[in-house]
Amino acid sequence: MDPTQSADTKDLTCKDYYFDSYAHFGIHEEMLKDQVRTLSYRNAILGNRDLFEGKIVLEVGAGTGIMCMFAAQAGAKHVYGIECSAIANQAVEIIKENHLEDVITIIKGKVEEVTLPVEKVDIIISEWMGYFLFYESMLDTVIYARDKWLKEGGLIFPDRAKLMLLGIEDEDYHHRTIDFWDNVYGFKMNTIKEIALFEPLVDVVPDTQPITDSCCIFDLDINTVKKEDLNFTSPFKLNCKYSEYMYALVGYFDIFFPGKEVSFSTSPYDRETHWKQTVFYFRDKIWCCCGDVLEGTVECKKVEKNPRDLDVHFSLQLNQKGHLITMDQKYRIR
Amino acid sequence: MDPTQSADTKDLTCKDYYFDSYAHFGIHEEMLKDQVRTLSYRNAILGNRDLFEGKIVLEVGAGTGIMCMFAAQAGAKHVYGIECSAIANQAVEIIKENHLEDVITIIKGKVEEVTLPVEKVDIIISEWMGYFLFYESMLDTVIYARDKWLKEGGLIFPDRAKLMLLGIEDEDYHHRTIDFWDNVYGFKMNTIKEIALFEPLVDVVPDTQPITDSCCIFDLDINTVKKEDLNFTSPFKLNCKYSEYMYALVGYFDIFFPGKEVSFSTSPYDRETHWKQTVFYFRDKIWCCCGDVLEGTVECKKVEKNPRDLDVHFSLQLNQKGHLITMDQKYRIR
Repeated sequence: MDPTQSADTKDLTCKDYYFDSYAHFGIHEEMLKDQVRTLSYRNAILGNRDLFEGKIVLEVGAGTGIMCMFAAQAGAKHVYGIECSAIANQAVEIIKENHLEDVITIIKGKVEEVTLPVEKVDIIISEWMGYFLFYESMLDTVIYARDKWLKEGGLIFPDRAKLMLLGIEDEDYHHRTIDFWDNVYGFKMNTIKEIALFEPLVDVVPDTQPITDSCCIFDLDINTVKKEDLNFTSPFKLNCKYSEYMYALVGYFDIFFPGKEVSFSTSPYDRETHWKQTVFYFRDKIWCCCGDVLEGTVECKKVEKNPRDLDVHFSLQLNQKGHLITMDQKYRIR
Repeated sequence: MDPTQSADTKDLTCKDYYFDSYAHFGIHEEMLKDQVRTLSYRNAILGNRDLFEGKIVLEVGAGTGIMCMFAAQAGAKHVYGIECSAIANQAVEIIKENHLEDVITIIKGKVEEVTLPVEKVDIIISEWMGYFLFYESMLDTVIYARDKWLKEGGLIFPDRAKLMLLGIEDEDYHHRTIDFWDNVYGFKMNTIKEIALFEPLVDVVPDTQPITDSCCIFDLDINTVKKEDLNFTSPFKLNCKYSEYMYALVGYFDIFFPGKEVSFSTSPYDRETHWKQTVFYFRDKIWCCCGDVLEGTVECKKVEKNPRDLDVHFSLQLNQKGHLITMDQKYRIR
C-alpha cells in the first residue's frame, strides 16, 4: 500500500474539515488505546452475543471499524459501518485484512446522505460522545440514524448517558492557567485571560480535588431523546464535603449499555479516559463550608453558527449564614 | 471585553484555516510557556540593546505580540508586527494594556499582501520554526519579508539554524506505536501501521536513547538563504557509540541569534521545548556495533499540493564486516 494514496484530505472545502480532522490516524490510536472506552464497548457487544446473533447491525461513525468487528465476532448476520472521514479507506482495508468483508460493509459518506442496502436494522452502535458529552454534537447523527433505520424495538449501544457535575479545589492550576496571563514575562495579557476563562479546559482532574458530591444535570435516554432536547436548562444542587475554596465546576459523564449491564464513567474517581474531564474555572474562587449547599442552573446549547461548538452558562448561588454569594459565568467549548 | 467578539474564525475558507488554527489561544500559551524559546528570544533582544536602540523593527508572525514588546523594551524606535491569524486582535489589545501603542503597530494580514508604513526596516524578528525545523514552511514568508523590507546590512533574529540528526534505540516505543497495529484487541490493522511508519512522531526523546553522535544535515544562513534552497538533499554520516539496535532517526535543530551570542538547542540532551524531537521510525530495526559508521542521504522537500507539509526521504547504508545493510524509507510530516 502506498500511504500517499489515502491522503485525499488536501482538496477539501472548509465544510469538510470536520470530517477529515479525524482522518489523521493519531486520534484513532488514542481512542483505541483508551481501554476504558474500547473494552467497555467490546464487553457490551461480546457479553451480549444472544442479542447480536443473526442480527443486522449499523455503526454510526465506524472509524477504524473496530466496533464493527466486535459485532461480527458476536455473531451479527451483517454489519454496516458508516464513516465520513478518510479513515473509511483504512477501515475497508482493515476489514479485508481480517477476512470480514463478507460480514462487514463500510459505507463512506454522511449518515444524512448515504443509502443503506437494507431498510431497517436491529441494532445501532455508536461512539458519539465528545468532551462534556455533547461537544461535536455527533448525537444528532445517531438520532437521525435511529429514526430512519432502527426497527421498532431495536437496540442502541449505548442507550443511556448521564452528564454529571461536581465542584473542585484547584489553586495550583488556576494559578498556572488563569493568573498566568496577569504577568507574562513582565507584561499583562488580560485579553487572553478572558478567553482562558471563557473556554473550559479539558484535563485530568485528580481524585483529591473534588470538594462536593456529584450531581446529574442530564439523564439521557438515547432510545427516545429528540434533537431539540439537546439544548437544555437544568437545575442542580451540590453539597460541600469539605471547607475549601472552590475554583471550578467539573463536567464528566457516565455511559450505560443495554443487555447484560455494562457501563463506564469518566469521573475523576475512575480510570483516566481520553475524554478526561471538562473544567469550568470561575473568575473568582468561592469559599465553601462543609455542609454548604450550592444551588444553580446550567444552560447548554449548540452555537448556531457552528453546531459542533457548545455554549454553557452556569449560574450559582450559595446562602452562607444569611450572606448570598452568587456566580454567573458563560463558557464556550470549541 | 466580550470574548465572543474576537471569534471571527467561523466564516473562513479552507485556505484561511492555517492562519486561524493558531487563533486558538492554547498554542500561544504553549509557546509562551516554552521558556527555552521565549527566554532565548528575550535574551537575544534585551541583551543587544545597542543593536535595537532607535531602530525600526519588523516581526513576522507576531502572535500575542510578546517579541514586539521585548523589542520595544530594548529601545526600538518603532516595531511593526504582522500577524495573519485572529490572535492579531488580542495582540492589539495586549499592546494597549501595556501602554505600548505608540511604539508598536500590529498589522493584521498576510506578509505578502500588507503594506508597511515604512519603506525599509533595520531588524526583522521571527519565530518561524516548525517541527523538524521546516514543517509549516513559515521561513518562506521571512525570506519574502527580508528581500522586500530589510535594509542593506540589516539584522535578522535569529540568523542561523542548523538541522541535526542522530540515531536512537527505542524498543519500547516502537513496540507501542508501530507493532501495536499488529494486534489491536485481536485484529490486524496493518494499513494503519503503514501510516504510522509514514508519519514521523513528534515526541520527547530521553537523553538515554541516542546511540550515535549528531550530524548536521542543513546549516542555514537566514541572511542569505533562498526559497529554492529549502528543498534540499544532504549526505550524512553517523558514528555508532554503542552496540545496540537502532530503531529510528531523530531530527532536531539548533538556533543562533546575531549580536552577543545567544543560542538554543532542541536536542534530546537539552531542556524540553514545545518542538520536542521528530522521530522517523524504521520498518525494521538495524543492529549497529560500536564504531560502525552509517552513511546516508536525506532528501527534504515541500509537498506541492500542500506546501506546509514536508516529504522526507532517508536512505542509509552500513557496511558491517563486508555485509551491506541498507534502509530506504519515505516519510511525510503533515
